[in-house]
Amino acid sequence: MTERDLPQVKAEVEAAFAAYEKALVENDVATLGALFLDHPDTIRFGIAENLYGYAEIQAFRAARPAAGLERSLSRTVITTFGQNTAIASTLFHRASQPARVGRQQQTWVRTEGGWKVAAAHVSVIQDHTEAR
Amino acid sequence: MTERDLPQVKAEVEAAFAAYEKALVENDVATLGALFLDHPDTIRFGIAENLYGYAEIQAFRAARPAAGLERSLSRTVITTFGQNTAIASTLFHRASQPARVGRQQQTWVRTEGGWKVAAAHVSVIQDHTEAR
Repeated sequence: MTERDLPQVKAEVEAAFAAYEKALVENDVATLGALFLDHPDTIRFGIAENLYGYAEIQAFRAARPAAGLERSLSRTVITTFGQNTAIASTLFHRASQPARVGRQQQTWVRTEGGWKVAAAHVSVIQDHTEAR
Repeated sequence: MTERDLPQVKAEVEAAFAAYEKALVENDVATLGALFLDHPDTIRFGIAENLYGYAEIQAFRAARPAAGLERSLSRTVITTFGQNTAIASTLFHRASQPARVGRQQQTWVRTEGGWKVAAAHVSVIQDHTEAR
């Protein structure tokens, strides 16, 4: 099996993940687009939509309202496999929805143009934790 | 970038994916457990639960009711990257919930013991497609 969590690889993916999160809350559509893999088989299952292919993802981004995107992350886990693959999973909460917890999971792959999201799935469910 | 969708690699992952699906609808807990990566950072975001680590995933499987697991898949896309990584995304419907669509996305990694799911995210939303 390929080696997990090599420090240099993990640091690269952590930086890409942070850049993605910043772009998301700022609705920086250009950066979000640059961080997704431009391929017809890039799939993003979103909170209320199923997007197949980079073109559908980009169209969704362009049409998305820019307000209310702020969120706080928790239990973020980034795992890398070898030099070229990583998985990023995180929970998120939005102040407007205190009883709901979001889940985001992405698979990142290394390309000549840097790390890109090759697949993503975002969903929101009831939050059963006691602390909130 | 690593080469996508090498035919031999894709065939291997398609077989693993099919074995997983069969085990899921039959609630074959042993096979499901064997197809997930036994690691504390294996994460499964499920329809109503967030499972961190192989132990939590196995406990969930063991406690799950065995009835009503039948489902039909659609728009399944399996993509491989190099020799050791793959992503499987699919929609699913259950007859008991005709207005809802499930989304399942898994990242598979090759290990010495075969292909294993290193991360998974399953969620169900309203189905907006006209055909159903």
